[in-house]
Amino acid sequence: MAASHADSPRAGAAVDPRTIASIVRAALHEDIGRGDLTSMLTIPPGVRARGVLLAKQDGVMAGGAVVTECFLQNEPCCSLSELLPDGEPFSSGDHLGRIEGTARGLLGAERVALNFLQRLCGVATLTRQFADAVKSTGVRVTDTRKTTPGLRVLEKAAVLAGGGSNHRFALYDGILVKDNHIRLAGGVAQAVARARAGAPHTLKIEVETAHLGEVREALEAGADIIMLDNMDDDMMAEAVRIVGGQALVEASGGMRLERVRDVALLGVDLISVGRLTHSATAVDISLELELLD
Amino acid sequence: MAASHADSPRAGAAVDPRTIASIVRAALHEDIGRGDLTSMLTIPPGVRARGVLLAKQDGVMAGGAVVTECFLQNEPCCSLSELLPDGEPFSSGDHLGRIEGTARGLLGAERVALNFLQRLCGVATLTRQFADAVKSTGVRVTDTRKTTPGLRVLEKAAVLAGGGSNHRFALYDGILVKDNHIRLAGGVAQAVARARAGAPHTLKIEVETAHLGEVREALEAGADIIMLDNMDDDMMAEAVRIVGGQALVEASGGMRLERVRDVALLGVDLISVGRLTHSATAVDISLELELLD
Amino acid sequence: MAASHADSPRAGAAVDPRTIASIVRAALHEDIGRGDLTSMLTIPPGVRARGVLLAKQDGVMAGGAVVTECFLQNEPCCSLSELLPDGEPFSSGDHLGRIEGTARGLLGAERVALNFLQRLCGVATLTRQFADAVKSTGVRVTDTRKTTPGLRVLEKAAVLAGGGSNHRFALYDGILVKDNHIRLAGGVAQAVARARAGAPHTLKIEVETAHLGEVREALEAGADIIMLDNMDDDMMAEAVRIVGGQALVEASGGMRLERVRDVALLGVDLISVGRLTHSATAVDISLELELLD
Amino acid sequence: MAASHADSPRAGAAVDPRTIASIVRAALHEDIGRGDLTSMLTIPPGVRARGVLLAKQDGVMAGGAVVTECFLQNEPCCSLSELLPDGEPFSSGDHLGRIEGTARGLLGAERVALNFLQRLCGVATLTRQFADAVKSTGVRVTDTRKTTPGLRVLEKAAVLAGGGSNHRFALYDGILVKDNHIRLAGGVAQAVARARAGAPHTLKIEVETAHLGEVREALEAGADIIMLDNMDDDMMAEAVRIVGGQALVEASGGMRLERVRDVALLGVDLISVGRLTHSATAVDISLELELLD
Amino acid sequence: MAASHADSPRAGAAVDPRTIASIVRAALHEDIGRGDLTSMLTIPPGVRARGVLLAKQDGVMAGGAVVTECFLQNEPCCSLSELLPDGEPFSSGDHLGRIEGTARGLLGAERVALNFLQRLCGVATLTRQFADAVKSTGVRVTDTRKTTPGLRVLEKAAVLAGGGSNHRFALYDGILVKDNHIRLAGGVAQAVARARAGAPHTLKIEVETAHLGEVREALEAGADIIMLDNMDDDMMAEAVRIVGGQALVEASGGMRLERVRDVALLGVDLISVGRLTHSATAVDISLELELLD
Amino acid sequence: MAASHADSPRAGAAVDPRTIASIVRAALHEDIGRGDLTSMLTIPPGVRARGVLLAKQDGVMAGGAVVTECFLQNEPCCSLSELLPDGEPFSSGDHLGRIEGTARGLLGAERVALNFLQRLCGVATLTRQFADAVKSTGVRVTDTRKTTPGLRVLEKAAVLAGGGSNHRFALYDGILVKDNHIRLAGGVAQAVARARAGAPHTLKIEVETAHLGEVREALEAGADIIMLDNMDDDMMAEAVRIVGGQALVEASGGMRLERVRDVALLGVDLISVGRLTHSATAVDISLELELLD
Repeated sequence: MAASHADSPRAGAAVDPRTIASIVRAALHEDIGRGDLTSMLTIPPGVRARGVLLAKQDGVMAGGAVVTECFLQNEPCCSLSELLPDGEPFSSGDHLGRIEGTARGLLGAERVALNFLQRLCGVATLTRQFADAVKSTGVRVTDTRKTTPGLRVLEKAAVLAGGGSNHRFALYDGILVKDNHIRLAGGVAQAVARARAGAPHTLKIEVETAHLGEVREALEAGADIIMLDNMDDDMMAEAVRIVGGQALVEASGGMRLERVRDVALLGVDLISVGRLTHSATAVDISLELELLD
Repeated sequence: MAASHADSPRAGAAVDPRTIASIVRAALHEDIGRGDLTSMLTIPPGVRARGVLLAKQDGVMAGGAVVTECFLQNEPCCSLSELLPDGEPFSSGDHLGRIEGTARGLLGAERVALNFLQRLCGVATLTRQFADAVKSTGVRVTDTRKTTPGLRVLEKAAVLAGGGSNHRFALYDGILVKDNHIRLAGGVAQAVARARAGAPHTLKIEVETAHLGEVREALEAGADIIMLDNMDDDMMAEAVRIVGGQALVEASGGMRLERVRDVALLGVDLISVGRLTHSATAVDISLELELLD
Repeated sequence: MAASHADSPRAGAAVDPRTIASIVRAALHEDIGRGDLTSMLTIPPGVRARGVLLAKQDGVMAGGAVVTECFLQNEPCCSLSELLPDGEPFSSGDHLGRIEGTARGLLGAERVALNFLQRLCGVATLTRQFADAVKSTGVRVTDTRKTTPGLRVLEKAAVLAGGGSNHRFALYDGILVKDNHIRLAGGVAQAVARARAGAPHTLKIEVETAHLGEVREALEAGADIIMLDNMDDDMMAEAVRIVGGQALVEASGGMRLERVRDVALLGVDLISVGRLTHSATAVDISLELELLD
Repeated sequence: MAASHADSPRAGAAVDPRTIASIVRAALHEDIGRGDLTSMLTIPPGVRARGVLLAKQDGVMAGGAVVTECFLQNEPCCSLSELLPDGEPFSSGDHLGRIEGTARGLLGAERVALNFLQRLCGVATLTRQFADAVKSTGVRVTDTRKTTPGLRVLEKAAVLAGGGSNHRFALYDGILVKDNHIRLAGGVAQAVARARAGAPHTLKIEVETAHLGEVREALEAGADIIMLDNMDDDMMAEAVRIVGGQALVEASGGMRLERVRDVALLGVDLISVGRLTHSATAVDISLELELLD
Repeated sequence: MAASHADSPRAGAAVDPRTIASIVRAALHEDIGRGDLTSMLTIPPGVRARGVLLAKQDGVMAGGAVVTECFLQNEPCCSLSELLPDGEPFSSGDHLGRIEGTARGLLGAERVALNFLQRLCGVATLTRQFADAVKSTGVRVTDTRKTTPGLRVLEKAAVLAGGGSNHRFALYDGILVKDNHIRLAGGVAQAVARARAGAPHTLKIEVETAHLGEVREALEAGADIIMLDNMDDDMMAEAVRIVGGQALVEASGGMRLERVRDVALLGVDLISVGRLTHSATAVDISLELELLD
Repeated sequence: MAASHADSPRAGAAVDPRTIASIVRAALHEDIGRGDLTSMLTIPPGVRARGVLLAKQDGVMAGGAVVTECFLQNEPCCSLSELLPDGEPFSSGDHLGRIEGTARGLLGAERVALNFLQRLCGVATLTRQFADAVKSTGVRVTDTRKTTPGLRVLEKAAVLAGGGSNHRFALYDGILVKDNHIRLAGGVAQAVARARAGAPHTLKIEVETAHLGEVREALEAGADIIMLDNMDDDMMAEAVRIVGGQALVEASGGMRLERVRDVALLGVDLISVGRLTHSATAVDISLELELLD
């Protein structure tokens, strides 16, 4: 099943290389600054090394392009090979890639590359668990805006690698009408009408609902997507029935792994899960370096 | 005991405000970009709101200055009050702070502020568990360079808030001689000598060791700090005996919470723990907003 | 009718102030650099002046926030008043706003402020002509991505001020499948399916068509929006009939003012017009300054 | 005659490549951001394409280096060839250049490249009309500071390509004493003296005049350049007579194409024309892409 | 005599505040980075201090606005008073200004402020010696492009404060034709003609000459300024005679203080002196801080 | 003896190339901006030139990588060769390197490259004089934070090239407790304790002392380094005796070349010298260019 994930167009919807380059540049600057003192003082410039990225836990690959960029920025002449494609599962003990270059260059980028890789594989691995849990239900597991500040674009790509889908990227490229918006606009109908009138016609309008009355209001107001926020399973089932295919239905709130298949079977179209990005933990991966004489 | 943490000079060793401002600026830009479409379309400019930051789990406060900066940058006229000081413990249901300002301004910054706060409280909360575990042993729990790219300065401040200590910040402000450095420099003595000769005299020299022979070599070479990397407890005890107070001793590698007190009692000076930053999960905190007419 | 434009939510969907500030900062730097030599050499620092923004042609206001930012950045203590709201029509001889501050500060920002204002009013004025032409038809006139590099966000706001609507902002926040995409994906159905699978569910899928066969294919593929590209009126009428309300229909290509009402009456939902931004000319506006003793 | 323009040193006085690179980088980021969603989802990475830049109107070429930079930044391995040199005239149907590279890379840069090219050719084309109008009179047509914010350096290069000349670039590299400066300095003599004393000796001093009395004053004050602002032809003729070759004379204000030759024949040295940059409209140019299998 | 310098328009031709702010921001970041560790650890946030800037050598004031910006950026609530105006002479023991604010804020900015002040006063003090040496000759002492990278704008303002004049600021705002340009253009006449044709008419054309033949060529070519490069006094006297007031004459090369008055008396208009900026040494100035309880 | 300096690990502790690239980029922009007008107007693009960097004074080489970066950034295809390694002494008339590339490219970078080279060689040359003065005493001459704003990293590398050592880089990577810190913390013991508790254990604690009482206090407080500030030789000798090897001793304040050997012989470990960076003057070096046909 991993292969089907990796081959899908989702995994191909990668990030613009300039965006990756810019994030990596800042991260290397944070760690290296004016120089890697220890290596500069103890290692002659020309010494070369090679190494493997070694998985010490099972997981799902993500962030391959980021790791590559880390090493290439710090050591333009290094070579990377046999990098596991994003979306591929791996087991403890697997090699995720090989690298060769100057010892100074590799040592300087090592920590930053691993910090990215461990976190992004963590996101992909957790996402895969959710994606597997809803397998064959036709339901999409999506991320949220609960991402690490500065890394959203990478974490959302890791969600794709894990087999999840992306929700809107940010406040500027999606319309999600919540309770405060509704109250201030003078009701659901008014809020949706204003959003429809002022937003590009290329964006769907999503409305957050907390109970069935709001679901009906959202439906009547012409919402394209209706989010069911923190409802229990019975209420969600009824909401799905009410909507009756006239809008997409997104379940949201407290979506833990144990519960997600049950929710999927209620007939919702999407389940959005904040923990994919805010509570994924690092996958243990190390760089085993060997000096070349 | 929490109070003593919060009152200590550690908690005062905050981050330069410009650094916080710069990180927050980028994070708000990532989420808001050219504008919060939904709020701009549905909420009139002048409407005001107030809210509380509500803890939904127990934890330790961190990132107060970051949250403040998020709201102030997006809504210069908002007012924050009753913010729990960094380092203070809180319980589920506690209010961590109050805020008032325009609805547009608060809604636009809400998600970013919470993304920071949840993560930094997560780091502080996990650190506090480690710090409590070694209480009264005189041992310091320190962080590592295994931080989130771009957020190191904030996460290291959260470690202080949790009662931990900081290790070197980056490759440019500390000397840590590892096996590859040693081999390339032609031995521990040579590596330490070169580092001592070339580095500012204001930096201590730390040497990583994997067995007792290396501990002895490092000691003879005049290392100021000796790191015991992935040793078992017996070997660490013997290493402490060998060093005999002539250098600081730092235990490192696989330092899980269950084990950390035992290690502390072996007589080491410091225990460095990667998971403080690479595997802390978000503490659940929400912003409960109420509109003002 | 102008009032209804100005009061509408569209005109309120303004740009995030930080985005305006950043564009203005670069523009002032371009013109002032290390200093306004002439004013610094001939005008004492404390001298004050006041002035009016004087329309020398009829037009529609846009860019008020940009002009304000220009003067405030260069002269933080200046005061602006009576600024015509964006979207309001004006006649030759009208005052668009008043300003008072130091002579040095106002003179230094004058040219940049006018360069923005003249261009943005130009866009709004031209858009208003198109919007008026389709009045009462229920059709929206939208902009395109044919904007001035660096000023897209401002020009799209000027389109709103003129009574037009925005299309997608950029390549990252909308899906528009064109002929090359279709051919490479192996057909319309395949292209739309891939886009649907990989894109956030919050974005509609638009397909560009050049003849009726493609319209039918796009409709069957489930396109949310069908663009009729450079079709004649008869073909567009037939396309509208085929679509039959199952998707939004957007007319595009060579949409000159003389023709736009006829197209609107064919039953399309949207007409996108590149010339709103790529060929609007400057509205003549000057700053009449008077020195205060 | 076009050839003589293109071969002249003016056309060679191009812009520093880093400045172009920086403007293009921002423009691509504005349009592509984190990625071209449609192309990434529907087009496999390796597919190649080739295309021609096709003129759909007559015009004068400008911005060749900018277009090149757009494609090279987005697709480092693309090749451009047969690019028409800046300053060359072209007719509707002409090819302005050829390009080959990956389909993704070319499609991503297409719109930005055309937005630049259409605008800059627009400036060059309009400038050529003015330059041709004053042919053989020895008078130079110059631009002003009425340029598009952020694009001044490119638009001024397009003016050169069109056969015009550049005025000062900005407030920091030229001295132009206007009525407000004069009044505040206590008269023309005083203003010119102060400017002469404080400015680098490498800059000429220009004085703006509105009537013949001011022309005489400026001349007596030792102005190097005298601008005749919004004078009628008779007054300009008399001003030229008064100056008598002791300073350069620049006509300015309302310089429409129909009038410019008459003004040139009055004996002025320069005619500055704001509309060259503030009211040039886009020349219609498209990129005709063909996919390579 | 100092007063006349300080009151002159030259001293008023200050630098745009944004440019100063930007240079200071980078300098504070260089020294403070993520925080002033010592002060943050040992000084409570609220403690206040006051101090005086104390001259320990005689000199001429420059950089007042830069010092002010340093303290204000690091401590927005500090107050500066009694700052000696740029261009004023001072004696050892004099107070150059007073400051009051938080101890942390002042200590953090102290070193950077002094680094700027000592260097800029050094430039002004050396310039004043040259300016005094040519007093009453009518000759201007000018700077060159031999400035500290990154600080040119500040050093050129310090030259003005010292009573000198500025040469062109950079390669983009002045024309200086040197031997290599002449040879490649095919002679002085050709080089000057090309420069005249392609450069804005607002810039004068300067030609560098090494012997009298070149002086004559430059004069015939219509140079506005003729630089006499490394000529002895006799040759310079003859060059002045040849030029006969038809162009400005600038002496350059090896202009030491002992020689400069003799050169001035030869009749040149300008003497350019690289050492004003490349070899000025720091004036000893300290900040004497006193803590307030 | 020069060779031993050049071969030492100190000279190898170079600066991260990205930091150099970033400083050079800003410096070239400062001088070239939108273009080198004179060269663009008079020199055809393809003309090539070669040249040598010619010493016109004796000195010590520093800044080789900076000069290289200047030329390569402005002319990517130029070649540099025979560059004297940093730390090597040279005599007037020596060639410090050779370069070949386009005339435009070399001329555009010439002044900036020389401005860096002359200043950095100035620092290295002065440092070498101090280093030679303390030869065989075992004492290190160190720099301070009295560096040129923006160039600290380069000047500190030049100090290494000259045979000196670096002190802490900035306020964020070292602890130096001064009198104000002590007073506010409530005494030396308290100040050192706070610093020790809050700072990373990888940093030594330095305490500034003004008399022998403070020396004793600092020693008792456990300072790692004791700075003797502006003491006379007798007091310093006594201080050294008191410290007795329990801490490093650093002499500071008014350390002129004539005095430095006497101080070294008093038994201190380090002598810090502000004038190495704040009062080094430029070494006269020129670029002798020859055009290639």
